[in-house]
Amino acid sequence: MATRKRKVTTKTIERLIRQKKYQQIRNLFEKYPEIDLAEACDNLEDKSKIVTIFRVVKSEHTADFFNFLDQDTKEYLIKAMSDKDVATLINTSKNDNIADFMEDMPANLVKKVLQNSSKEDRQIINKLLNYKDDSAGSIMTTEYLEFLNTTTIKDTIDEIRKIGKNAETIYTIFVKDTKRNFLGTVDLDDLIFAKVDETLEDIMNVDFVTVDVNTDQEQVAELVRRYDLNAIAVLNDDKRLIGIITVDDVIDVIQEEASEDLSLQAGIAPLEDSYTKTGVFKMAFKCIPWLLILLVLDVFSSMVISGFQAQIASVAILSAFIPTIMDTGGNAGSQTSSVMVRCLALNEFTNKDFFKVLWKEMRIAMLVALFTSIFAWVWFMIEMYCHLVDYSGPAGTVLTGFDLFLSRSGISLLVAATLFITIMIAKLFGYLLPWFAKLLHRDPALMSGPLITSIVDVSSLLIYFGLFELIKLGFGIQF
Amino acid sequence: MATRKRKVTTKTIERLIRQKKYQQIRNLFEKYPEIDLAEACDNLEDKSKIVTIFRVVKSEHTADFFNFLDQDTKEYLIKAMSDKDVATLINTSKNDNIADFMEDMPANLVKKVLQNSSKEDRQIINKLLNYKDDSAGSIMTTEYLEFLNTTTIKDTIDEIRKIGKNAETIYTIFVKDTKRNFLGTVDLDDLIFAKVDETLEDIMNVDFVTVDVNTDQEQVAELVRRYDLNAIAVLNDDKRLIGIITVDDVIDVIQEEASEDLSLQAGIAPLEDSYTKTGVFKMAFKCIPWLLILLVLDVFSSMVISGFQAQIASVAILSAFIPTIMDTGGNAGSQTSSVMVRCLALNEFTNKDFFKVLWKEMRIAMLVALFTSIFAWVWFMIEMYCHLVDYSGPAGTVLTGFDLFLSRSGISLLVAATLFITIMIAKLFGYLLPWFAKLLHRDPALMSGPLITSIVDVSSLLIYFGLFELIKLGFGIQF
Repeated sequence: MATRKRKVTTKTIERLIRQKKYQQIRNLFEKYPEIDLAEACDNLEDKSKIVTIFRVVKSEHTADFFNFLDQDTKEYLIKAMSDKDVATLINTSKNDNIADFMEDMPANLVKKVLQNSSKEDRQIINKLLNYKDDSAGSIMTTEYLEFLNTTTIKDTIDEIRKIGKNAETIYTIFVKDTKRNFLGTVDLDDLIFAKVDETLEDIMNVDFVTVDVNTDQEQVAELVRRYDLNAIAVLNDDKRLIGIITVDDVIDVIQEEASEDLSLQAGIAPLEDSYTKTGVFKMAFKCIPWLLILLVLDVFSSMVISGFQAQIASVAILSAFIPTIMDTGGNAGSQTSSVMVRCLALNEFTNKDFFKVLWKEMRIAMLVALFTSIFAWVWFMIEMYCHLVDYSGPAGTVLTGFDLFLSRSGISLLVAATLFITIMIAKLFGYLLPWFAKLLHRDPALMSGPLITSIVDVSSLLIYFGLFELIKLGFGIQF
Repeated sequence: MATRKRKVTTKTIERLIRQKKYQQIRNLFEKYPEIDLAEACDNLEDKSKIVTIFRVVKSEHTADFFNFLDQDTKEYLIKAMSDKDVATLINTSKNDNIADFMEDMPANLVKKVLQNSSKEDRQIINKLLNYKDDSAGSIMTTEYLEFLNTTTIKDTIDEIRKIGKNAETIYTIFVKDTKRNFLGTVDLDDLIFAKVDETLEDIMNVDFVTVDVNTDQEQVAELVRRYDLNAIAVLNDDKRLIGIITVDDVIDVIQEEASEDLSLQAGIAPLEDSYTKTGVFKMAFKCIPWLLILLVLDVFSSMVISGFQAQIASVAILSAFIPTIMDTGGNAGSQTSSVMVRCLALNEFTNKDFFKVLWKEMRIAMLVALFTSIFAWVWFMIEMYCHLVDYSGPAGTVLTGFDLFLSRSGISLLVAATLFITIMIAKLFGYLLPWFAKLLHRDPALMSGPLITSIVDVSSLLIYFGLFELIKLGFGIQF
């Protein structure tokens, strides 16, 4: 089991506030990470107590503490704080953290924050707020260490010591020339191994990857992961550094995107907050839209079955295999789409690979369809001969012996053939739809799971009844 | 778009080998990251060329280059290399990387590697090979920097310079006492900010989190993410440090677990390799098992429908709503299970929250079921009055006017009521099954998606026909 010194609880904090033991509260902040304290304070029954905590705690902890609180608590605090306190908070906080929580904040509070920011901070915050969601610009930080290429190692280290821990990361140092062009990066460990009289240019890593503000955050994450970076540079069109994205933010992006893909694949709108913090009503309305959309789409399946009512009435056994056909089709489609969603997310192939991968998928589909439908044919015969499914001939007739065998074989073969075609079509849609979503610049995961199921349902039913008619009319086979 | 200096291609490497431009190959390794070169070499048509590259390249690059090659290429190389070359490779590689690729290697190659390892390396590799898959032990590295608590900052920095870049990470330094008990960590930036005559104990962070070798890798990842760590300590039962896990390995774990959950949720066995590197046959056999299992499970649905053949024959319209009921039930169940899988993966709640969350889920289910079934009732009426679905009374009768309205309302109400109960049951199963999987120490994702769909199918059909009988017999309503 993972171990960590016992966690700070909401109860402890409530007790200390009640007993006015402010020095002990201050001590908590020396002992525990801000994220744990913030989580304990989120759950305080009386939110006004957080204002007390905020006044008591040393200013070096407040910015991080505030950053980890949940959105409601943040808004409560901004509302309750004096202008001066807000100004101090903004001043000690990172601009990207401020921009993050302002995105979902009501207009009057946004105004209060901006009015209490310095002119410079205000400009940066406004800029950050304008970047598209899920873009590199929206997750980058504007605080980083940038040095001239001619700076010596000694001067660099002295300067870092002077600046202190204010920059988001000192693990990667960014190097520019006198024209502010971005040249490369130096890792902190390279700094330690270098001779003190070398310059940054001597030791810098020029084989860097960079992104621009509009790069998708998922792509940023993949680059950082692939090249094991501590931080990646975000450049503007003039190739000048305007921000950096650090590895800890990248981890959050990866978690967030994974949760989002998983949700979309299950037909549920992604949660903005954790499950525990999302209310019952909000959760329900994350579930309902897709259920309704899919319910309406299912009308096509109903229309198909309704159109073939006569056939079902004469050979009622036909309906017994509808669930199997629908499920197998849906499952086969989801399998392919989930693989495609993942590959597209990780940039495993580019647009020019479209036909190559299509060809591969079709060969996979052929194998899966062949194997499954042969198995199914045998399995359906077993189902009927073991009387799991009752069938002894069309309505009004009772067949026996070889006639019964022929008729049962016909039904099994019909369902198996339907499965074969259904699986092929399901895998084709499972392949095409995520690409289609990508083409429309939507999340490929949106087009997987339930949507595929509904589309495949209709096609599989059409194939089923179509084949039935074809075999009956074309070959005069007696079911 | 993300930019990086143009990538090295397989063609370039093939050309350089053909022209015997070995110096230029050597230069490539100075210019490009090993991961890019390894990827280009994986695709070489003639694998024997890689042996040439291996001989040409400077030894400082070979270990990383080898590490990034795919499993087949690695095995080919080990087979082709002389004992002496293998010994050099093992010696310069990190033990955890060696253990990783040995896990899937045939026995004769494992023997060749172990025979050419030093006694010390052999012991560590054997130990690493014995840790459970997905445990902290299986992803930790045994190379790290550990210093006595009384070491001064100056001595520490001097020592680090001497050791050089051999340790996996120098960003986190681990501190022990003379009895080898683990005391805390020092981040590299703290080292730079500290005064040279302070000791590690003065500046170390004692508010550390640690894990043991059996901690699940997903839990390790969550701790590293939560506390923004560079590396986390792995302790044995005596609280002594035996390995560390670095943030770049954690990112890989998060990606891998996310892909795995997504695959399981779609009923496809997780891929060990990337899609591109997995062959058509292997891909097909990742898909087939779940399709067959679910196909067999669908027999229960067939049995239910088969048992109600008489009812379907008399009111054929009943079968038209089967797809809608099945899809909605399956979708509602997957929604809940996907949320639960994610929450359990991120440790959002513990076992004692079981009933609290159950109560929350049931309230959500009630809202979703109520809203969806009311909508469905209206929608089914529209379907019938717009003749999307044909129904003008039971077989043999043609109702009109108010009688037709009553009969249609009855059908709509029957389906809507079925949907209500089905959604409640689906969400209950969607909640229970992932917990059940956790109880059995299996991946919760295994119990979501397709399996839920198949279970909900049977129950929804039973409810459907059960309600039909109940309403017909109990209330004497004419459909």
